[in-house]
Amino acid sequence: MIKTMNKAYLNINEIQKMVSVDLLAVNNIIIDNIGNDVPLINDLSKHILASGGKRIRPMITLLTSSICNYSGKNHLFLAACIEFIHTATLLHDDVIDESKMRRGLATANDIFGNKASVLVGDFLFSRAFEIMVANGSKQILEILSKASSTIAQGEVLQLTTINDCNTTKELYMKIIKRKTASLFAAAAEISAVLSEEKFEIQNSLKIYGEKLGIAFQLVDDALDYAGTSALDKKIGDDFREGKITLPLIISIEKATPEEKCFWTRTIENLEQSSDDLNKAIELINKYDGIDATLRIAKKYSIEAIKSLDIFPKSEAKLALESIAIIAVDRKK
Amino acid sequence: MIKTMNKAYLNINEIQKMVSVDLLAVNNIIIDNIGNDVPLINDLSKHILASGGKRIRPMITLLTSSICNYSGKNHLFLAACIEFIHTATLLHDDVIDESKMRRGLATANDIFGNKASVLVGDFLFSRAFEIMVANGSKQILEILSKASSTIAQGEVLQLTTINDCNTTKELYMKIIKRKTASLFAAAAEISAVLSEEKFEIQNSLKIYGEKLGIAFQLVDDALDYAGTSALDKKIGDDFREGKITLPLIISIEKATPEEKCFWTRTIENLEQSSDDLNKAIELINKYDGIDATLRIAKKYSIEAIKSLDIFPKSEAKLALESIAIIAVDRKK
Repeated sequence: MIKTMNKAYLNINEIQKMVSVDLLAVNNIIIDNIGNDVPLINDLSKHILASGGKRIRPMITLLTSSICNYSGKNHLFLAACIEFIHTATLLHDDVIDESKMRRGLATANDIFGNKASVLVGDFLFSRAFEIMVANGSKQILEILSKASSTIAQGEVLQLTTINDCNTTKELYMKIIKRKTASLFAAAAEISAVLSEEKFEIQNSLKIYGEKLGIAFQLVDDALDYAGTSALDKKIGDDFREGKITLPLIISIEKATPEEKCFWTRTIENLEQSSDDLNKAIELINKYDGIDATLRIAKKYSIEAIKSLDIFPKSEAKLALESIAIIAVDRKK
Repeated sequence: MIKTMNKAYLNINEIQKMVSVDLLAVNNIIIDNIGNDVPLINDLSKHILASGGKRIRPMITLLTSSICNYSGKNHLFLAACIEFIHTATLLHDDVIDESKMRRGLATANDIFGNKASVLVGDFLFSRAFEIMVANGSKQILEILSKASSTIAQGEVLQLTTINDCNTTKELYMKIIKRKTASLFAAAAEISAVLSEEKFEIQNSLKIYGEKLGIAFQLVDDALDYAGTSALDKKIGDDFREGKITLPLIISIEKATPEEKCFWTRTIENLEQSSDDLNKAIELINKYDGIDATLRIAKKYSIEAIKSLDIFPKSEAKLALESIAIIAVDRKK
């Protein structure tokens, strides 16, 4: 239990326990759908899919199906499909970012090479479509295919802002809305569509997902400069890549001429020495970059929770509210 | 006109002229669907999509729709969707192969970088799904999503045989069937489904596409050692990458111990000097590698034509037969 604002929320273990039967079924669907006669696909997919991500996105599909009292089995397949899309983007992201570590393990591109990561990403992505075609209505297919192309747009947009210290807050928000929040939104919205709920409910869940996704990404970006250096993510990855995120934007906006030179050298020109990350964190804290980012995240988290007002009290509702709390309360 | 086996076939210009109105509509759909507010997506997509590929795959959808007397407009959207899937795989292929030239122009990865090519490939791929969801039935979506995952499987399988001189003919055939023929097959089959033709017709067109696709890839692979060095493809690309194709497999199978050493050095270890391509071509010709490959291609081309026997005589039928002739008759 987490106590916040005079209300008792569930912790992540309690939520996982609540959906454990469904989550197991989703895992089995995932494993069944990786299997084919190309060993490299099996090995690489298992490496990333079995490496125990938090399964936040499929959990959202499961819990939103539950809040809609959905009683069929299609939500399990769609939850797997959401995880496939997410995993495909992770594989391609790690190639783009030249990452070496993910979830405490070497990245797939580091072990299997960039080429295999690109192609297995493509495989998982098309397999996701095969699964959704078999299990979703036309409207669900529209939502999921649109979310996929929106993610790609967000990723390309992010690529164009790398090393660009003039990136605005507005552009940053547009990027995270597309690259992260669109899949969260789709993961929640499809449950209402699957349950044949009216538009108002569909829209409330879509908003829940979108706000949650934005909060989630904001916290991720804050933790890159402030997290406990946990095994599964190194601090300073974004800094080293010259990726422009909100804590940075806030500090660059207020920088003195001398500080501007620092950002130009380290972010625009990527000329970094070993002390520069500490100096960057110092400058970010000087202008309250982390806390300001977390405050905005909290605002989105509250809006996510608020969008659930339309639903009567239930276990699933409490779990969805709790996820919004956990998203902004985590340390890694 | 091309005269072969006592029959007059159409040349590519005559075929293009025949479908020119539809092809123009497909091009407009392609351009409409690239457009969005991310300039890099527009620039990169236009670079590759407007660079004037032969549009063979969409033409197959147009002509097979015509042979089925389809009278709607959905085939135009599905043809665009086939070209999007094809283009997405080209973008990712060029990243994988580290290619510098395509269709006589610098490759997208060479101009815009690998990262942009991966992500814009993802965008085109998801946009293809958006288009097909809006314009295709459940069965068409099944065919196209299955084709996409089959292509990815073929690509991964090909990756695992790179530099491997022990690759068998059977494995090579499996690879080209998946990576190339599956999209040709889908491009033809969906027209019959769209036209609500009976299973026999659907299957005949699927077989036409599959056989044609195999013939097409075999000729491509032969031309890599024998084509006229046209602007749009350099001879010897496959050799330089250590990609294992049929002309090579035939020659490696029959190689003397000394020749085996040559292949091990140049293909397995990729230790190549400037004379090695000529030596490779010499060895391939010694064992009839090119002609043997082209003979097999011709066999598939004839089978493709034969699969059209079920249709009465028509302009579209003649054009489809002609494409199968052109596929094995071309010099580049």
